[in-house]
Amino acid sequence: MQIAFVLFDRLTALDAVGPYEVLSRLPDAEPVFVATEAGPKRTDAGGLCLIAERSLADVPRPAIVVVPGGPGERRARQDPVLLAWLSRVHEHTLWTTSVCTGSLILGEAGLLTGKRATTHWLAMDELAALGARPVAQRWTLDGKIATAAGVSAGIDLALTLAGRIAGPSVGQAIELGLEYDPSPPFGTGSPERAPAATVDRLRNLRRARQAA
Amino acid sequence: MQIAFVLFDRLTALDAVGPYEVLSRLPDAEPVFVATEAGPKRTDAGGLCLIAERSLADVPRPAIVVVPGGPGERRARQDPVLLAWLSRVHEHTLWTTSVCTGSLILGEAGLLTGKRATTHWLAMDELAALGARPVAQRWTLDGKIATAAGVSAGIDLALTLAGRIAGPSVGQAIELGLEYDPSPPFGTGSPERAPAATVDRLRNLRRARQAA
Repeated sequence: MQIAFVLFDRLTALDAVGPYEVLSRLPDAEPVFVATEAGPKRTDAGGLCLIAERSLADVPRPAIVVVPGGPGERRARQDPVLLAWLSRVHEHTLWTTSVCTGSLILGEAGLLTGKRATTHWLAMDELAALGARPVAQRWTLDGKIATAAGVSAGIDLALTLAGRIAGPSVGQAIELGLEYDPSPPFGTGSPERAPAATVDRLRNLRRARQAA
Repeated sequence: MQIAFVLFDRLTALDAVGPYEVLSRLPDAEPVFVATEAGPKRTDAGGLCLIAERSLADVPRPAIVVVPGGPGERRARQDPVLLAWLSRVHEHTLWTTSVCTGSLILGEAGLLTGKRATTHWLAMDELAALGARPVAQRWTLDGKIATAAGVSAGIDLALTLAGRIAGPSVGQAIELGLEYDPSPPFGTGSPERAPAATVDRLRNLRRARQAA
């Protein structure tokens, strides 16, 4: 089962690697990292490159597609080769998925029209403009479209899909293998739970970056 | 603040990328991926390479060291260049850290003698043989040695360290930025919580691999 992880410059590494760590452990998984042009892609925080070993053209019919987000999402949404590939491979996928602002790329490719979808809490207002029905949940499924909230939510979504694809006992075993028994030290991982000042600070940072 | 992430072939990607995603967001973070020899390193599940842009020799005095685990740990423990580098840089680090079976590499380098340390639940019996005092916790600190349990536990450890290094409000903001409000679908992420048959299956798999 071929699983294509889409890379582009300035992606958020964990958006892709969280689901990779889960889905690559499925029986018969064949993970492949792809990009419009094969080669190293730099992640947003610097210092790390992930390698896209294949070009999109080399992977015409993946069973699962995972589209990460990150600041590079804005440029990825202007890449006609990527958008056309997504639209084409989606016809045959088992699951077409995104993490964080990767859903904005799916939306730009026209795949979210009328669909329930989610994204990073900071980007929720952008989903509706792309024709989706925004849902503030950790992840959401609509048909074969599966979207996760910000960054770390990709792990939860991927485990859920692993259970659907290979059965709950495989999902349980992967969760145990990854020792995914999380214990967030601050308990501030959602805007509802974080101090209002912290929420405002991140909102202002995003606005400043978008204006830049 | 230079943060060195050690790579080697057949590492577990999330062991490194979880802490990277957290620690690279610290103010003044300078993340750098290092290996005995610079170049692409293949992760254990296949299909993904992370690039070590610098050799160990190029990074003589990192403030923080993060050592991931994975099946490649066994070979990494036989790499005299890596072990000598760890022992040398540890003298000046603020934190020397590991995720999953990365602690076995720290142990092999002689850094865990008499120290409380943890690792993946499947490898806990190997820690004592390296002179450490094994602790079955999500993460544990002993002096400036900070070790995390299996794979995903590196995220919790890194957030904890982020709070210690830059203060709780920064830790809270990073947790919110990563939308780290986990919701594991199966609740089987620790051997105490997983079905006994699943625990046994993973134990047997590991034994078979070690015998191979």
